Amino acid sequence: MPVDDTFAPLEWIGSAASGRLRLLDQRELPHAERWIDCRAPEDVASAIRDMAVRGAPAIGLAAAYGLVLAARGSGTDAAARIDAAERLLASTRPTAVNLAWALRQVAARARSNPEPNALLDLARELHAEDVAGNRRIAELGAARIESGMGILTHCNAGALATGGLGTAIGVIAVAHQQGKRIHVFADETRPRLQGARLTAWELSRRGIPHTLICDSTAATLMARGRIQFAVTGADRIAANGDTANKIGTYALAIAAHHHGLPFHVAAPASTFDLSLEDGSGIPVEERGEEEITSWGDGRTCPPQTRAYNPAFDVTPAALIHSIFTDRGEIKPVDRDSVSRTIGLKP
Amino acid sequence: MPVDDTFAPLEWIGSAASGRLRLLDQRELPHAERWIDCRAPEDVASAIRDMAVRGAPAIGLAAAYGLVLAARGSGTDAAARIDAAERLLASTRPTAVNLAWALRQVAARARSNPEPNALLDLARELHAEDVAGNRRIAELGAARIESGMGILTHCNAGALATGGLGTAIGVIAVAHQQGKRIHVFADETRPRLQGARLTAWELSRRGIPHTLICDSTAATLMARGRIQFAVTGADRIAANGDTANKIGTYALAIAAHHHGLPFHVAAPASTFDLSLEDGSGIPVEERGEEEITSWGDGRTCPPQTRAYNPAFDVTPAALIHSIFTDRGEIKPVDRDSVSRTIGLKP
Repeated sequence: MPVDDTFAPLEWIGSAASGRLRLLDQRELPHAERWIDCRAPEDVASAIRDMAVRGAPAIGLAAAYGLVLAARGSGTDAAARIDAAERLLASTRPTAVNLAWALRQVAARARSNPEPNALLDLARELHAEDVAGNRRIAELGAARIESGMGILTHCNAGALATGGLGTAIGVIAVAHQQGKRIHVFADETRPRLQGARLTAWELSRRGIPHTLICDSTAATLMARGRIQFAVTGADRIAANGDTANKIGTYALAIAAHHHGLPFHVAAPASTFDLSLEDGSGIPVEERGEEEITSWGDGRTCPPQTRAYNPAFDVTPAALIHSIFTDRGEIKPVDRDSVSRTIGLKP
Repeated sequence: MPVDDTFAPLEWIGSAASGRLRLLDQRELPHAERWIDCRAPEDVASAIRDMAVRGAPAIGLAAAYGLVLAARGSGTDAAARIDAAERLLASTRPTAVNLAWALRQVAARARSNPEPNALLDLARELHAEDVAGNRRIAELGAARIESGMGILTHCNAGALATGGLGTAIGVIAVAHQQGKRIHVFADETRPRLQGARLTAWELSRRGIPHTLICDSTAATLMARGRIQFAVTGADRIAANGDTANKIGTYALAIAAHHHGLPFHVAAPASTFDLSLEDGSGIPVEERGEEEITSWGDGRTCPPQTRAYNPAFDVTPAALIHSIFTDRGEIKPVDRDSVSRTIGLKP
């Protein structure tokens, strides 16, 4: 399976009435490319909770397709089924706001027309808009990249994290397509290693030169002049530009700031939560200790040692050089600029 | 095996003529407590190179005992054997300067008296001085710790990394013994997980409350007011106070500085390399990519992905609040203060 501008990590197969949502099981990458068929909203909820599908825009789209599955369920009360599925899917992961955003769009359509066909049309529309938006994000970001740059990214904000192309990796991929000579430093991204498993896989498939590093190595590469540009995705952005993203993003933004290097975020408008004044209101998911205390079947630490595993951190707007969005570049990153580009409090 | 103030990760057993150096194999921790017997300098060199013994002061002491093994070897020319063993042991790991320091002491003694007994006496003296020095370091550092503090440490600068007690963990252990209510956040320390495997093991054995975190999580804990004090060991300190330590230390020092928190180093005088004006001259060991690209038998990333694995980074003196040494606290950390406390260029 090539990773190119047409690759999508999720796809609806068949008709609205009898088809299914097909998801690439990202837990198996880079070793196996296995796809999961979801035929009920519960299947989609499990896939999101267990991180078979992950990445803020991708889980939003998976949830949108999940409501199509709810609409065609058995029994007569489609509205009740959609309502229950919306609650189930919304509860799977708390930080990414694209999930709530996508569910809200499809549930609103369902109130006027709960036909599976109508909802599938909308889910596909959201999916196509996501990819088109990523293209705009990528072009904005790539314009800031110059030949010869070392580029740092964290976690995976690639095609796998979205409807296709990706946000941060979209920026990198378009710069590469433009013939710019770049080298990517991909943080391995503990504890789940999305950088090693997913970003390195996407960069390899696209033939983009890259080096895998431990998360804590980025700062010393900055000090040595090997990194000129840093870009990550986002899971939720508050009205003032404070940005939640994968744990470790904040430390990178501080290090970039310390070295006078630009730290960028790439995210669609659906990642903004204008109901939050600032990042202090963003709920941060805490995941199981075993993601840190175990590896495969073995423990990494003594049996009595406990671990703390927040999945995200919040980077204050002041540390972000600009945010590339499908509605334009937000720069400087502050309340006025967010409001001008994304809109006002809903 | 308890970890208390009498615990040592290495010990000479028996007479100088027929005894052996016994080393705790730290690669097996925390799962098994297996000891390795070294009966020739080559055994010690392998143990250092393969990191069965690690930590700047501990590898210095292991090398000192290694020269005792060389002195009693067969053949008549003890001086030549000691000379060859010194070169072999010095080549095992390039960054920690305690190794060269310990070898220099023992080789100098050997020039006047190459008897195994005389060299064993000296090695044991260096070992005892290391532990006594760590006690002084620990008391200096513990005096800066207040009840209620959250304390961050990185990698393992504990009893396991020294002749006993430890440097950074010595500071923490003495504060705990003084009845101060503290909580330690131990970075897991990628790629070799010395924090998860070794520091958590030592803290557990000493009954010190602690939580294991991913290296990239420290910054967000600082932002949330959970960390008030950071302390690590060191592998080499230049004349101006620039400090080489485990990869990731620099990122923590930047984050501590950003949050206005004190970042401390704890190290004996043998860690100082006054021949180097600043950190730019410190050789940084680059270890194999497989420490990042593999875990157990499996790869973490695609087969074609390359990794970059510097084992250390250099933290500039300006980011270090003070250095606790066996000769006093260096504060502020600058050339004058280092020279006043440690001495002048040798």
